[in-house]
Amino acid sequence: MDAVTPTLAAPDTEPLIADTPKASPAATPSPAASEDRTPLYRQLADHYRHAIEAGTLVPGDRMPSVRTLMERHQVSLSTALQTCRHLEAQGVLEARPRSGYFVRTPARASLVPVAEPRPWVPDLMQYVGINQRVSSILARGLQADVKVNFAVAHGSPSLYPVNELQQATIRALRDNPLLYGTPPPGGGEARFRCAIARRALEARMNINPEEIVVTHGCIEAVNLALRAVASAGDVVAVESPTYYALLQTLESMGMRALEIPTSPQTGISLEALQLASETYDNIKAVIVVPHFQNPLGSVMPDSHKAQLVKWAESRGVAIIEDDTYSALGDDGNIPAAIRSWDTSGNVIHCASLHKTMAPGMRLGWIAGGKWQWRVEMLKYAQTRPNEALAQIAMGEFMDSPRYDRHLRRLRAQLREHRAAMAEAIATHFPAGTRLTLPAGGLSLWVEMPGSVSSERLFDAALAKGIRVAPGSLFSNSSRYDHFLRINGGQPFTREVEKAVRTLATEVSRLLDTNG
Amino acid sequence: MDAVTPTLAAPDTEPLIADTPKASPAATPSPAASEDRTPLYRQLADHYRHAIEAGTLVPGDRMPSVRTLMERHQVSLSTALQTCRHLEAQGVLEARPRSGYFVRTPARASLVPVAEPRPWVPDLMQYVGINQRVSSILARGLQADVKVNFAVAHGSPSLYPVNELQQATIRALRDNPLLYGTPPPGGGEARFRCAIARRALEARMNINPEEIVVTHGCIEAVNLALRAVASAGDVVAVESPTYYALLQTLESMGMRALEIPTSPQTGISLEALQLASETYDNIKAVIVVPHFQNPLGSVMPDSHKAQLVKWAESRGVAIIEDDTYSALGDDGNIPAAIRSWDTSGNVIHCASLHKTMAPGMRLGWIAGGKWQWRVEMLKYAQTRPNEALAQIAMGEFMDSPRYDRHLRRLRAQLREHRAAMAEAIATHFPAGTRLTLPAGGLSLWVEMPGSVSSERLFDAALAKGIRVAPGSLFSNSSRYDHFLRINGGQPFTREVEKAVRTLATEVSRLLDTNG
Repeated sequence: MDAVTPTLAAPDTEPLIADTPKASPAATPSPAASEDRTPLYRQLADHYRHAIEAGTLVPGDRMPSVRTLMERHQVSLSTALQTCRHLEAQGVLEARPRSGYFVRTPARASLVPVAEPRPWVPDLMQYVGINQRVSSILARGLQADVKVNFAVAHGSPSLYPVNELQQATIRALRDNPLLYGTPPPGGGEARFRCAIARRALEARMNINPEEIVVTHGCIEAVNLALRAVASAGDVVAVESPTYYALLQTLESMGMRALEIPTSPQTGISLEALQLASETYDNIKAVIVVPHFQNPLGSVMPDSHKAQLVKWAESRGVAIIEDDTYSALGDDGNIPAAIRSWDTSGNVIHCASLHKTMAPGMRLGWIAGGKWQWRVEMLKYAQTRPNEALAQIAMGEFMDSPRYDRHLRRLRAQLREHRAAMAEAIATHFPAGTRLTLPAGGLSLWVEMPGSVSSERLFDAALAKGIRVAPGSLFSNSSRYDHFLRINGGQPFTREVEKAVRTLATEVSRLLDTNG
Repeated sequence: MDAVTPTLAAPDTEPLIADTPKASPAATPSPAASEDRTPLYRQLADHYRHAIEAGTLVPGDRMPSVRTLMERHQVSLSTALQTCRHLEAQGVLEARPRSGYFVRTPARASLVPVAEPRPWVPDLMQYVGINQRVSSILARGLQADVKVNFAVAHGSPSLYPVNELQQATIRALRDNPLLYGTPPPGGGEARFRCAIARRALEARMNINPEEIVVTHGCIEAVNLALRAVASAGDVVAVESPTYYALLQTLESMGMRALEIPTSPQTGISLEALQLASETYDNIKAVIVVPHFQNPLGSVMPDSHKAQLVKWAESRGVAIIEDDTYSALGDDGNIPAAIRSWDTSGNVIHCASLHKTMAPGMRLGWIAGGKWQWRVEMLKYAQTRPNEALAQIAMGEFMDSPRYDRHLRRLRAQLREHRAAMAEAIATHFPAGTRLTLPAGGLSLWVEMPGSVSSERLFDAALAKGIRVAPGSLFSNSSRYDHFLRINGGQPFTREVEKAVRTLATEVSRLLDTNG
């Protein structure tokens, strides 16, 4: 985005952007456009974003329709659609059912999104001790007297139906007098597995409840998936930046992480993945978080998901899909899971409920595809079946209308909290700061100017009672050392606002001292 | 025991058994005794057992005092004591506080204990797919309409304080309104860890609550311990027979199991372990269940534990102690944990509460010794901290006098149920059947005559609605194919008695058809 130099004229002039000859044979691309390697829809999106920033289009204005875009710029239907969706994902447009796209009230006009990653050639990471680093950061965080915690990746307790789940748990205890007297059933509680399977239909997956193995959070699911498809020494491709738990798990299993450039908008770069697979012929699996990725908030377009499935299948690379955040999109739509394109069992689907339902319940699940038997065996050998209580309570809750009611409320609150937090960062952080504006999820990914060290900031903030997640946790490289992940899931109170100001002051101070 | 040919005269003749010259320089061992490699205390114990079987001593009679034994047989104090304890462990004698040992009313005069293992040279097991075998057996068991389940290794719900724990859970929910809203703390709940640490004192361990990492059952603890000290390809020594979960875990991690002959009385053979370590110089760890081992019910003498600690330390072999059953001894004493002899951090201590407190709660724990940091890291990367709810409820229960009250009741019931079950097996099973008579724990280990196939019996019994655990699950070898593990933790109802008769009939039928 910002890394792309605008080369486009204002909306009403001749089309300078057009599809490739194949897609739209009549169009004549301008020299500028044909030299520019930025995808066409992105050029077009930038074009309109600039128009909006310049005041040509103002909040509430209707965006030209898809048909208009096609005609005006001589582009294909898919490019026109992608353009609008991209602007929606950036928070610039909003879709209104049966009315088209409209210019959204921006969080703040000066908000600069995080840049697309400069492409790099993926190379196998020499572990620099991510476990040591994560443990040290966590330990320092726990020892300090933290007043405001921006480091977590879940919402505040007020966002979750804690009372209703407590009541459901009490009912579960009363209805099952022998609950503590007998071991939990293999695989999981039937009602809970059925509830999960029914909900999976919304993500266009058809999963038999019997295939759902309940786990201790998504992290156990991913552990089992990795153990099912790979061994120590094997190469596993991951998004970069990625949730540090994945890097920790890989390191703890002696597997090697191959970090793939990942767009804050569209997720993992399929081109980079292709390139990597030409260099490393022993990639056993790729782990992707397709929706509202942690920390980026990126969302893979459906076309990417379909391509990834096809590519991985042909290469013999297993896909491990971590779809923990899919219910957290601002628009309330559940995006189609990668697994919904799978026809051969090559996608292992993992998810959990602690981001959407209850951070205090460790309920995750896995559907193992063609590794189902091995996943079941590994789960049994690793931790045995999960306790029944939480499953019974959650199963009851998910079967009721309270579940959707909760999700609607949660999404609305997350949207509001995230926007307020982004606005505060844009207002108070020094010039040159960039941040993502995801259209869902829990995190904001903040790039500090001037290569401020996130670990030094972590320590400085901790001394003031504020905890952040330094970017250095999210890669084995030093690529994100000047980034922060900031939680967008807490009510924007005065105390939080004050903490953002304090944090901003610390960033400025470190910036001034070349920190 | 039975494998040893009695070479002893009746009690009142000259001492034929005596300690080695060093321990008792005045004694002159008879040629028979010096040739016999059976330990002295065992010869002496057999001597008195035969006297009791012959009616020389009858139930209720006082056993000669330790002092009498020392004088009469010219043995040391420790040999005399060991003799009595051994006979107690066999169920032949019972200790009465401040009165000495008395002949116990035998479960049945004809009860023949399982033989000591014939020593074998430990060899690395070629996996024959223990996971496949266990999964298949479990699946067949789950599909069938089981009316009486002898295959489990926990007590009936009636043995556990299910109501009290449910009430404690409800209180925990009410007292912690934000319980589901925030993730559980690292390591575990403070009160629960303190309760565990306090209870560990009874087993003579001094463990800091901070060192206790709460896990999903003992199986996760053992998984973490193995991952902390060994890698794929490494050799790990295990008891033989052993709980199949350990073999499964080893297979799932690509580690190699080295099965060590294990006595139904005194546990793992230290001689065989020594021999094995001379053959295999890459043994990374030994897993032992020192008290009321599953399936044997064996109890390691303190002298063995001390020797094992010393030996393992000098060899650089980690000890993984699984002490899940230590509270289940008939006499109510908590035996000293192996870890209590450790001074260098070479013993990783693992245990759980689902055998003693609540089979439906998956609460285990691990103290990692010198691998503590690695254990903590692996737990975090594998499943994150355990949910808080069960820990809060259990912590409250363990802090109250109800805990000891429950344990007393549990032990008394287990003793009664186990004895009734042993008596029924001895009465109804065909001649030649042998079984253990452990002085605590949950299981009976039954050797069927004439090499009856335990898997064929499993299928035959299942067809009649009865589930057993076939001996073939407890080893990678075929050594225990004609054994069964029978649960001794259920009330001996008419239905159970009928099931034992049916099982006995099936054994006889298979025996007649060379099955």
